[in-house]
Amino acid sequence: MRIILVGCGVVGRSFLSLLLKNKDYFVHSYGFNPRVVAIVDRDGAILHSRGLDLSRVLKVKEERRTVSADPEYGRPNLSALEVIRDVEADVLVEVTPTNVKTGEPAMSHIKEALKNKKHVVTTNKSIALALPALLELAAYNGVQLKFSGTVGAGMPVLDLARRLSGDRIISMRGVLNGTTNYILTAMEEKRMPFDEALKEAQKLGFAEADPSMDVDGIDTAVKLVILANSVMKRSVTLEDVSISGIRGVRLEDVMEASEKGFSIKLVGSVNKELVVKVNEVPKDDPLCVKGVLNAVTFSLEVAGDITISGKGAGGLETGSSIIRDLLEIRQAGLRA
Amino acid sequence: MRIILVGCGVVGRSFLSLLLKNKDYFVHSYGFNPRVVAIVDRDGAILHSRGLDLSRVLKVKEERRTVSADPEYGRPNLSALEVIRDVEADVLVEVTPTNVKTGEPAMSHIKEALKNKKHVVTTNKSIALALPALLELAAYNGVQLKFSGTVGAGMPVLDLARRLSGDRIISMRGVLNGTTNYILTAMEEKRMPFDEALKEAQKLGFAEADPSMDVDGIDTAVKLVILANSVMKRSVTLEDVSISGIRGVRLEDVMEASEKGFSIKLVGSVNKELVVKVNEVPKDDPLCVKGVLNAVTFSLEVAGDITISGKGAGGLETGSSIIRDLLEIRQAGLRA
Repeated sequence: MRIILVGCGVVGRSFLSLLLKNKDYFVHSYGFNPRVVAIVDRDGAILHSRGLDLSRVLKVKEERRTVSADPEYGRPNLSALEVIRDVEADVLVEVTPTNVKTGEPAMSHIKEALKNKKHVVTTNKSIALALPALLELAAYNGVQLKFSGTVGAGMPVLDLARRLSGDRIISMRGVLNGTTNYILTAMEEKRMPFDEALKEAQKLGFAEADPSMDVDGIDTAVKLVILANSVMKRSVTLEDVSISGIRGVRLEDVMEASEKGFSIKLVGSVNKELVVKVNEVPKDDPLCVKGVLNAVTFSLEVAGDITISGKGAGGLETGSSIIRDLLEIRQAGLRA
Repeated sequence: MRIILVGCGVVGRSFLSLLLKNKDYFVHSYGFNPRVVAIVDRDGAILHSRGLDLSRVLKVKEERRTVSADPEYGRPNLSALEVIRDVEADVLVEVTPTNVKTGEPAMSHIKEALKNKKHVVTTNKSIALALPALLELAAYNGVQLKFSGTVGAGMPVLDLARRLSGDRIISMRGVLNGTTNYILTAMEEKRMPFDEALKEAQKLGFAEADPSMDVDGIDTAVKLVILANSVMKRSVTLEDVSISGIRGVRLEDVMEASEKGFSIKLVGSVNKELVVKVNEVPKDDPLCVKGVLNAVTFSLEVAGDITISGKGAGGLETGSSIIRDLLEIRQAGLRA
């Protein structure tokens, strides 16, 4: 399998290091022998038609900040779109930063790949802006668009939901954002007010300098849109979600709920409406996970509530979701 | 898809009623049109090559205790083995009672079907006695053996575990038996001694008159063997499991653990060894589910701990697992 990687931040580099580390295991267990033939970062590309030496690439990236600085294989003038169009490959792995306003540059990259009949694996939540159209474009071109890392990182939430066939998903609700869950847990367990808990999360690297995406519920809403589209066949976008975040949560509310046996959680839910808002969740509900954990509960017509929980973020975790998606594409190809 | 059903107890009848109720949905959503062409219970069979009228069958079963009493299609003298061998069908659904001593009659039924190149879907935990050999027999004959209902009923534990490709399962541990979990939860929450909690579970239908399979840890061990074989590629049988149950658990142990923030759970675990024994589980661990709920935690090399929880028993829930397996067989067939 020939792969183009666009984006070489934490997730991209984690993906490369997992490939490097587990090469023998993948060949041995799955007969899976991926070759990365091109990598593009903000400053250019690096190409090798027989497959790049990934330890060399990671070293160049670390020492010179761009893969295109490689003296032999670096191509500083090549753009991502040119590489996606012109380099012979089976799959584009798109891991540029999420942009929920315009969706760019991911949207252009993904469309270009699909039009050129290349499969796409992405961890980019920008797809929430146009998922139904992208899935249609993939189907039209006879290729696959996989995005299991966009929800739950290493936790296969989307894949699990697709395994629930034979029963009907009536509704779902989830604690989908580790940053807000860390903050709410710290408020409850350490009796910290919101501002202090946010600062602690930032210090520990669980929240960004501008925490708005997380704290105001947008990240949760984006994931909810992806779940609703891909699991519940709802044709919805971000505009269809009623969103509120956790900035208004007071310490006294958290402590009062706690004494009654509840924790305050930021919950995204899909019923008739798509809603992101704080909820009081019983402490013995499997959805009531702590710290940076995520959890999703699917309510099924016959089997009742099924919950999956685990770490919902992290570079390596998200990198492992890319490999899972690549293996699925390969297995579908073997069956075809 | 032409189906032979062997076994017409709670699970078999639940399966039939789900088929009956969701017929239009299956055709509409999956293009899946199952026809049950034969059903065998303890007293004989009922056959119809174009597909039985399931509401009629359920009525005959209820009123006359055996499907073979149907005046038109009943065949009191036909045995399960004859039906499996001679009736033209794609799949055997085997739901006779589990027997962990001899594996019979399920083992003979399943082998006969596989030898006759019929796929098999079973909820019968007897397969734990010889799973590696049965899987080999299926592969040799080019058919599938599916058993997702044996662990977690409607909760797709085995399917989830197979979705964890791209990462490595290092170990797993699970609360796999609803009866013992109900008893332990009642002891903790209602301060009941073991005997009293067992009686309550029996009264509510959560425990059998002879509760040994559950209470002595055998049911948990059987499920652990199925998980170890099918998910972790361990070639093990029931004899490889170190088993102890919950009869020795004293109310004071439960309460003492509870005050420290732990609940006592019967946990089956696969590490180097396969072990079933009571453990103190932290109350905020996702594995620490209450009542009749089940939960399994997979520890992955990259993604860390992933837990799935839900109702692990029930006729309809187990029935829905059969439909899930049938859909998987059908989809694999479409791809082939």
